[in-house]
Amino acid sequence: MAKILTLTLNPALDLTVRLPRLEAGEVNRSENMLTHAAGKGVNVAQVLADLGHQLSVSGFLGDANPQAFDALIAHRGFGDAFVRVPGETRSNIKIAEHNGRVTDINAPGPLVSEQAQTQLLKLLAEIGPRFDAVVVAGSLPRGVSPQWFQALLEMLRAQGVKVALDTSGEALRAGLQAGPWLVKPNTEELAEALGNAPDAISRLHQMGVEHVVVSDGAAGVSWYSSGATLHATPPSVTVASTVGAGDSLLAGMLHGLLSGDTPEQTLGRATAIAAMAVTQVGFGIGDHAQLDILQSGVQVRALTEQ
Amino acid sequence: MAKILTLTLNPALDLTVRLPRLEAGEVNRSENMLTHAAGKGVNVAQVLADLGHQLSVSGFLGDANPQAFDALIAHRGFGDAFVRVPGETRSNIKIAEHNGRVTDINAPGPLVSEQAQTQLLKLLAEIGPRFDAVVVAGSLPRGVSPQWFQALLEMLRAQGVKVALDTSGEALRAGLQAGPWLVKPNTEELAEALGNAPDAISRLHQMGVEHVVVSDGAAGVSWYSSGATLHATPPSVTVASTVGAGDSLLAGMLHGLLSGDTPEQTLGRATAIAAMAVTQVGFGIGDHAQLDILQSGVQVRALTEQ
Repeated sequence: MAKILTLTLNPALDLTVRLPRLEAGEVNRSENMLTHAAGKGVNVAQVLADLGHQLSVSGFLGDANPQAFDALIAHRGFGDAFVRVPGETRSNIKIAEHNGRVTDINAPGPLVSEQAQTQLLKLLAEIGPRFDAVVVAGSLPRGVSPQWFQALLEMLRAQGVKVALDTSGEALRAGLQAGPWLVKPNTEELAEALGNAPDAISRLHQMGVEHVVVSDGAAGVSWYSSGATLHATPPSVTVASTVGAGDSLLAGMLHGLLSGDTPEQTLGRATAIAAMAVTQVGFGIGDHAQLDILQSGVQVRALTEQ
Repeated sequence: MAKILTLTLNPALDLTVRLPRLEAGEVNRSENMLTHAAGKGVNVAQVLADLGHQLSVSGFLGDANPQAFDALIAHRGFGDAFVRVPGETRSNIKIAEHNGRVTDINAPGPLVSEQAQTQLLKLLAEIGPRFDAVVVAGSLPRGVSPQWFQALLEMLRAQGVKVALDTSGEALRAGLQAGPWLVKPNTEELAEALGNAPDAISRLHQMGVEHVVVSDGAAGVSWYSSGATLHATPPSVTVASTVGAGDSLLAGMLHGLLSGDTPEQTLGRATAIAAMAVTQVGFGIGDHAQLDILQSGVQVRALTEQ
């Protein structure tokens, strides 16, 4: 069991609404509406907890609507290292119709002051060294610059903590400058940040990134490290929702690496955990026997054997 | 200053989202998103507090997301007589586009158990007599029958408390059987519950209803009581949003009646408060001088002088 901190700088309340058909400009009646605490780091923490690790969660949380996060933190026994900021944590509304169409409305979230940013840096300077790994995941909130983000990752790295990074765009480009221990871009995110794959991978290793995990949906996962260059193909599953699949993959990789599993077991299990997320409307590991069955369907091979 | 209790059996969180254009099936980015505690009784309480009265609020509140209500209750200094029920208070989403189109998605809200209903009846049996008036406003939640609703109103009436009722459909028909002190239907609600106006008014008076206040949008307000039969025409105003206009009218009528104002002053001020709500995106009395100006534009006349 490892002690892991996940950092979600721009968490969200996912508000899922189901209704027969969305009629714009009309009064629609929904069948049900569910709110839950979300954001990449929060999702990763839940899967890691399912895998038996001890979790703390951090980032910025709006003080006007912390209820769902407070409940999740209490229910899962997470350490609470969130810095509270004035305003509401953003809500991401998902409107799901009977015909399968989903309309998303994503909100910008609160503006995070320099004072709150300083507060988070101070807190992480104090508590960072207590963890075996820190996962930094998701987008940057309003008010937070890529430069500040890079400085935060550099501070964590200087503490000797293993930093796993999962973000995109400018935040990914800035974060990579800090040479995190592990990055988990998907194919598009990697190409956007660094160009074509083979060159990008060697550049990442030169930057000090030890583990590059590249996800490509149903085509599988490639893992480039000094110890192993592997590819895993997931079993064919019926897709219920891809929500949390990338977060599940990241959690699975951390689990294997921090538990000292073999590279094949690490990637195989992580790929199975992501496949399991895809078969659910939510994500998480409810049934470990089912996970074993999925893992037996994962094909792991050395990339050089192509 | 009067002591007033408002009862909202099915409150809602109003979640207002603004965005340039709603594209169904796509990921939309909203410009901002605002959540606030709402529901007819909660709205009436806020306007009555603006008018200087001492308020308590009651009804059923979901225990999973009480934050916005708790904050409002603390901020306004309301007495909190809500019965907490398992689950989430419903969210009513309002999606406002730049072209003025508004799409509403209203949720059903939690199922209220018999146990919670009994708890509310016991609470009201205890605290009801402390108030000069009780406002009962809005729809019935799932699990609450019109018969139970009628019994609740009969109990309040038996306590000698002035009961003001604002609801519609089956709940209005059942509630009227309890002979409330005041009812405030709009023209459609009245017709749906009791048929044509002249006959409906006399039937209501026969049922023991002392004050019948019928709102008809920009056409104004008619008030039928033993003491006065008046009509008020509001000044012409630019409509920003009609949200809270009916609740403002009800609050204004209670204010005048409980303060011992003349009938003309009571109806004139109430009509001005409703007009003021229409000029705002929200509602409430921020500027009493502006309210005086609006009231000077209200025309009150005896209905028999038509």
